[in-house]
Amino acid sequence: MKVLILGGDGFCGWPTALHLSQVGHDVTIVDNLSRRFIDVELEVESLTPIRPIHERVAVWKEHTGKSIGFISLDIAREYDRLVAVLLELRPDAVVHFAEQRAAPYSMRTPATKRYTVDNNITGTHNLLCAIVESGLDVAVVHLGTMGVYGYGWSGSAPIPEGYLTVHVSTPDGAIEREILHPANPGSVYHMTKTLDQLLFAFYAKNDGIRVIDLHQGIVWGTETPETGIDERLINRFDYDGDYGTVLNRFIMQAAVGHPLTVHGTGGQTRAFIHIRDTVRCIEIALDNPPAKGERVSVFNQVTETYRVRDLADLVSKLTGAEIAYLPNPRKEAADNDLDVTRDRFLALGLNPTMLGEGLVEETKGIGVKYASRADFSKIVAKTVWKAGMEVAPDLMR
Amino acid sequence: MKVLILGGDGFCGWPTALHLSQVGHDVTIVDNLSRRFIDVELEVESLTPIRPIHERVAVWKEHTGKSIGFISLDIAREYDRLVAVLLELRPDAVVHFAEQRAAPYSMRTPATKRYTVDNNITGTHNLLCAIVESGLDVAVVHLGTMGVYGYGWSGSAPIPEGYLTVHVSTPDGAIEREILHPANPGSVYHMTKTLDQLLFAFYAKNDGIRVIDLHQGIVWGTETPETGIDERLINRFDYDGDYGTVLNRFIMQAAVGHPLTVHGTGGQTRAFIHIRDTVRCIEIALDNPPAKGERVSVFNQVTETYRVRDLADLVSKLTGAEIAYLPNPRKEAADNDLDVTRDRFLALGLNPTMLGEGLVEETKGIGVKYASRADFSKIVAKTVWKAGMEVAPDLMR
Repeated sequence: MKVLILGGDGFCGWPTALHLSQVGHDVTIVDNLSRRFIDVELEVESLTPIRPIHERVAVWKEHTGKSIGFISLDIAREYDRLVAVLLELRPDAVVHFAEQRAAPYSMRTPATKRYTVDNNITGTHNLLCAIVESGLDVAVVHLGTMGVYGYGWSGSAPIPEGYLTVHVSTPDGAIEREILHPANPGSVYHMTKTLDQLLFAFYAKNDGIRVIDLHQGIVWGTETPETGIDERLINRFDYDGDYGTVLNRFIMQAAVGHPLTVHGTGGQTRAFIHIRDTVRCIEIALDNPPAKGERVSVFNQVTETYRVRDLADLVSKLTGAEIAYLPNPRKEAADNDLDVTRDRFLALGLNPTMLGEGLVEETKGIGVKYASRADFSKIVAKTVWKAGMEVAPDLMR
Repeated sequence: MKVLILGGDGFCGWPTALHLSQVGHDVTIVDNLSRRFIDVELEVESLTPIRPIHERVAVWKEHTGKSIGFISLDIAREYDRLVAVLLELRPDAVVHFAEQRAAPYSMRTPATKRYTVDNNITGTHNLLCAIVESGLDVAVVHLGTMGVYGYGWSGSAPIPEGYLTVHVSTPDGAIEREILHPANPGSVYHMTKTLDQLLFAFYAKNDGIRVIDLHQGIVWGTETPETGIDERLINRFDYDGDYGTVLNRFIMQAAVGHPLTVHGTGGQTRAFIHIRDTVRCIEIALDNPPAKGERVSVFNQVTETYRVRDLADLVSKLTGAEIAYLPNPRKEAADNDLDVTRDRFLALGLNPTMLGEGLVEETKGIGVKYASRADFSKIVAKTVWKAGMEVAPDLMR
């Protein structure tokens, strides 16, 4: 299958590109390298020493003989080139990772709020519009987020996969409807993914675009079998307060001797998935697109749920690291339960990688190996959801 | 009250600016004149001879002694100036009409689809972000559309004002929730208004922005008491296939001797409101903002519903015009019923202007008076919702 991977240089995109190439797809990465530019802006780097994109694809070719194309293109700003790329390559599918994906960054400043909305919405809409203009039948696999659902909305009912059955009273008695699950995003970033859903629904209805929207949990881990082939293929590892994800931050903090930073009570339950399963889920999604004219197909791309403070306790127990409870810079509930339906990927053969000592150790290995690259002044989360909220000072220098 | 009117040079914005000035508010129009630029692009003009904005406000001053400010500003492209304007004028409220508002134009070409999304979403998000950045407590009154609800979704239940009560089954029994009414937009334009709703919900929740979203029906009529004071204050009147609204098109067509153009079966029921009531509704909304921290307040800004072919029959009976049934360039149901809850404005004192012979005659007067300005080649709707759909030839030259 010929696949374009938008955002194929990023944390999820790069291992996905390698995995899809490995299993035999003809892969081309489209990326504007925005994530690397944001590293420059935030004055922080991936803990792992990622190589330039041209070197990455050359090393992949060297080891496997497989070519991955690379096109430097901003889908939100270069619409005409996007159409030209579609018409030239005529892909069977596009995997769309090309969105600003950090909630804290999306709340950092007016400029980053606006960048997140402009980049994500204009980019997604340009993609849909370009596919219609091209006249091609290109399936779209999009990375959504569990955060579109919000947390704790539906009482004891597990969060369904995209669509919720509701009953509505009418003068003629109650009627049943299946609706897109009501949106309750917790940041500008999450909000953009709720807007994306409406873009997809419209273009599926009006133009018959085939879309799979994957509502992913928090990704942890770094390496996949493919990124582990050569150090020059290594995936990025973010540990800073804006881009670092909670479990990877704990593991890295333990490795470098920093207290585990729990912002708030840690009573929030969140959904998780290992990066190895992310790439496998994308592969499965590509093999199972909706038929033309069907509604958007939604999967919950999640394998486990954990309460944040339980994760901290687990990592603390495994490593001896202490836990620091810091002010919460987010506006969110102090506690929530979370039960997520995740049947669709399991039914299609996903064999999940569960959180266990071995995997934590593997990831910790990266923390230890690259500890000297860490900047302790970037660890404590400083981005507040609203002006005036309290932030913690740095814990180590 | 100090009020900024974004899009205050447009069809709804201009009469609103005059009305709010008339009742004593301190009004400043912010507009980038985009609607006039689109006239140039489409090679069509308002049937009525509208005057330049500076002349309009000067004539208003001449007649009433009241000043209306004008600032040329693109809220989607000039964020920093928007913040500066807020900080300088410190308005109590912003009325936000600054969106591309024609469904056919939004479906016309890839460029107009993209313009509609970029202009409407970036503009609305910039406004919210700028209010947060300013630190001011500015109420936002936004023009939504009945089209966010879709048509015929809820069986015999009337469309509620924004929020729908649903029941969801859980292991512990059914729970009741009040949700934003599920979105089912019929065009890119309508889709942008469903995205706006999510922007408002998030900024109300996170930042306490006070928002009123007015889901307006199809506006008809041209003049208000204020625009009628002097011909140089006249409101615009669109009769073309992209920007003309159905009832005004029928009335104009009858006046110039063109068949009444029903695209499709005419079995669609739509909601209507006279422009006189639009301006009065905005006045009422400004006087009744939600409290800080409350959810978005939604009103249905609608006074009557009609089936399109019944409207054509009515105008035909009153004028003797014949009716031409043409192919429908829209993807929509051939027939729908529509029952709309509209209690909130009535409870707050709106005394609706109902469709009656007198009003049709008044509007017809404009058609007759300015008939020589009509370009018959612009009357038949030519914009299709999807490539390959049938369009009708022009009926008259």
